[in-house]
Amino acid sequence: MNNPQLNKQGELQHLLSMEGLPSRILYDILDRASAFVDGAGRGEIRKVPLLHGKSIFNIFFENSTRTRTTFEIAAKRLSADVVNLNIGSSSTSKGETLLDTVDNLCAMHADMFVVRHAQSGAAHLIAKHVAPEIHVINAGDGRHAHPTQALLDMFTIREKLARLQDLHVCIVGDIAHSRVARSNIYCLTKLGADVTVSGPATMLPREVERLGVRVAATIREAVRDADVIMMLRIQKERMGKILFPSVRDYSRFFGLTTDVMREAPPDAIVMHPGPMNRGVEISSEVADGPYSVILDQVEAGVAVRMAVLYLLIGATGDE
Amino acid sequence: MNNPQLNKQGELQHLLSMEGLPSRILYDILDRASAFVDGAGRGEIRKVPLLHGKSIFNIFFENSTRTRTTFEIAAKRLSADVVNLNIGSSSTSKGETLLDTVDNLCAMHADMFVVRHAQSGAAHLIAKHVAPEIHVINAGDGRHAHPTQALLDMFTIREKLARLQDLHVCIVGDIAHSRVARSNIYCLTKLGADVTVSGPATMLPREVERLGVRVAATIREAVRDADVIMMLRIQKERMGKILFPSVRDYSRFFGLTTDVMREAPPDAIVMHPGPMNRGVEISSEVADGPYSVILDQVEAGVAVRMAVLYLLIGATGDE
Amino acid sequence: MNNPQLNKQGELQHLLSMEGLPSRILYDILDRASAFVDGAGRGEIRKVPLLHGKSIFNIFFENSTRTRTTFEIAAKRLSADVVNLNIGSSSTSKGETLLDTVDNLCAMHADMFVVRHAQSGAAHLIAKHVAPEIHVINAGDGRHAHPTQALLDMFTIREKLARLQDLHVCIVGDIAHSRVARSNIYCLTKLGADVTVSGPATMLPREVERLGVRVAATIREAVRDADVIMMLRIQKERMGKILFPSVRDYSRFFGLTTDVMREAPPDAIVMHPGPMNRGVEISSEVADGPYSVILDQVEAGVAVRMAVLYLLIGATGDE
Repeated sequence: MNNPQLNKQGELQHLLSMEGLPSRILYDILDRASAFVDGAGRGEIRKVPLLHGKSIFNIFFENSTRTRTTFEIAAKRLSADVVNLNIGSSSTSKGETLLDTVDNLCAMHADMFVVRHAQSGAAHLIAKHVAPEIHVINAGDGRHAHPTQALLDMFTIREKLARLQDLHVCIVGDIAHSRVARSNIYCLTKLGADVTVSGPATMLPREVERLGVRVAATIREAVRDADVIMMLRIQKERMGKILFPSVRDYSRFFGLTTDVMREAPPDAIVMHPGPMNRGVEISSEVADGPYSVILDQVEAGVAVRMAVLYLLIGATGDE
Repeated sequence: MNNPQLNKQGELQHLLSMEGLPSRILYDILDRASAFVDGAGRGEIRKVPLLHGKSIFNIFFENSTRTRTTFEIAAKRLSADVVNLNIGSSSTSKGETLLDTVDNLCAMHADMFVVRHAQSGAAHLIAKHVAPEIHVINAGDGRHAHPTQALLDMFTIREKLARLQDLHVCIVGDIAHSRVARSNIYCLTKLGADVTVSGPATMLPREVERLGVRVAATIREAVRDADVIMMLRIQKERMGKILFPSVRDYSRFFGLTTDVMREAPPDAIVMHPGPMNRGVEISSEVADGPYSVILDQVEAGVAVRMAVLYLLIGATGDE
Repeated sequence: MNNPQLNKQGELQHLLSMEGLPSRILYDILDRASAFVDGAGRGEIRKVPLLHGKSIFNIFFENSTRTRTTFEIAAKRLSADVVNLNIGSSSTSKGETLLDTVDNLCAMHADMFVVRHAQSGAAHLIAKHVAPEIHVINAGDGRHAHPTQALLDMFTIREKLARLQDLHVCIVGDIAHSRVARSNIYCLTKLGADVTVSGPATMLPREVERLGVRVAATIREAVRDADVIMMLRIQKERMGKILFPSVRDYSRFFGLTTDVMREAPPDAIVMHPGPMNRGVEISSEVADGPYSVILDQVEAGVAVRMAVLYLLIGATGDE
């Protein structure tokens, strides 16, 4: 088994992408996350000493409120020590290589790296490099993967719709350049959901059907039989260039509005990974409407990240 | 009762400004702060587990050493988990609205937001928006309010002069643009002190007397019968424009020097919220002199902020 | 005794530089650091509650991954509360003086300041200024000193070679502008090692022999009988100006390559304080080779800083 994410016993060693993870492990994570939420009664998550004495380094080469903060909160709820490194402002600017930085942090007895990087493959590179007692979570690398986002999306869907198998999920937006889309497509198809994607032709990957998804020509067609409508954040800085003529046109053809929602089944749920561009890919009426589970996704983010942290460095018997 | 700062039982729900707070609550905070200081003997403040498991988010849209650090220290002395967010460098720069950011942090089960923002009313906006189990402290909003600064000033005065009632307090500087001045004027008059203000005409609010204060034409007149002399920081970047011809002129007419101090009663105390412009609004001789209680104010800041945090999220019976 | 680093009982009060510290104290620190490492069995360092309730402020006026992070990790392993202050972005930018900032932090009941500053003498200035219950560690000041770096280097050498006395140590690079070199030269000669330095003439201090070291004209001569080869980081921004014609020339004459290593004794160890410029002062083959103890140095950094923190504020009997 040469999946770098699993150790010889087939247990999770790193969380880098959804590809190659057995569904057993995906369900393990979701079940563990449920246990953290349920444990506290009223939907709260108590502070527990499960990772007391562990050192977790958040290494963020790209900005992020949501992801960095939920990882920090997740780690603190588990009583771990957290060190935040904004690498833009540190040694790599003095010319040190990425792997030298990593080696240094390893030598300080890190237990875990949570890595966000603009370049696809950065987290894999680090995971391949570190000693076996150190674990790596990919918190988003380039256009490649964002596995904890996919897991929190699965968690949210399961909470709301009680299952993943045979659900119809549509994903709308810039499929080609989205790590969120890639990770969700892998995870959803693995767990038995039917996935439809939709977006401007310039935003669909070549041979997109090889990912096991169906393509819908319009957003209206995409939502028609959807149990779950997953909108992607549009990156405005890409607009007006090659991908799409303008924000306004994008919004008119691929924005999710109450008008479009009339085409969807009445009990469909609406998701968005955030941060939202209100009035662009999603209207405020929809974002704040009754079918929206966008804030449930954020809430799930804490529980799912606690679960992953715990499974990687809390359950190993070493303290 | 439509004061957003109080809940239906008349207890403190948020701390947003001094306006509308009953003196009972002001004294509660001061007494609780005293208890945190006294508890430790030699003026120290021990670490206590009162807020163990609580999550406090410092959301600072403006820079600050003193305020952000004292809130962080206060929270850590109470054993809370603290997450610092420098919002300039995060999602709002990706176009997310302030309230979306807040919603996201709420969904992570924040217990408390400590907010500093350049715009007046930002903390009120957030407080109105969040669910009842989340509490908001205004750590300075535009020119509007800085309630914990006023409270730590009250605390310092009471420690030094044993009372607030009937004291003569003068406030000197840019009254019109200072949130510190506004909050102190409200708090001092509420607790029965007599307040005199003084400053260049361009730095006094219109109809300043309606705030219940007297205006002194010169700093010498202002300090003459003062028990407390409160200097405001001058913002040099405003000088040379409309407000005042130059830093040197300002200093000559409204700076607190040993020469001016000769006009004040011998046991008057001198305060400044910091950071000081030595040689501008206050001379070094005065700032470091025997009547200065400027560092006592900073010390009081930790105790008062612990008191507010505890009263808002520690004493509610939920854990 | 007017050494500001020692109190009246001759115990460590601050750690500012290596000059004037008795070898008794140097060995105390090294022995304490060993105890922190050994205590955990497998080379790990457990979290211990020795500094619970203490407040440590990392005040960094210059960027640093390694040093700031190891101090933060060291403090957290000892269960202290740590507050990071990046002073560039705070009050001093509003015109507050360094000592006013320090006074403010003291008033918040700091127990310890860890200070890095671009100006030589900054940490001494602060240490002279603060009250006796507050302790200061110099984490690097200008070209002057970096005492914890020297101590972790001593620790590493002792771990690898079992002694310091009578060892031959060569230091190669920009001796004149390096605080690492200065602190190491003092510490090594104090503990009985023989020190040789080597570097371009423009990078040697005048009258360098007065520091008690020998000068080798070439790197090959320097390494010839060395037990320890200590390379310094070259600051590329200085190249091309007065000090040396080019990076390439520097590397050719003073870079440590496998070819140069052939001149050294077979069991010599190679050190570098990081961050490395691979291919400039050290080749990748050497940096990653069997004689390299560069990552051991980083590891030692945590243990040594824990030892210093503990000796300064943990062993005083006050809590």
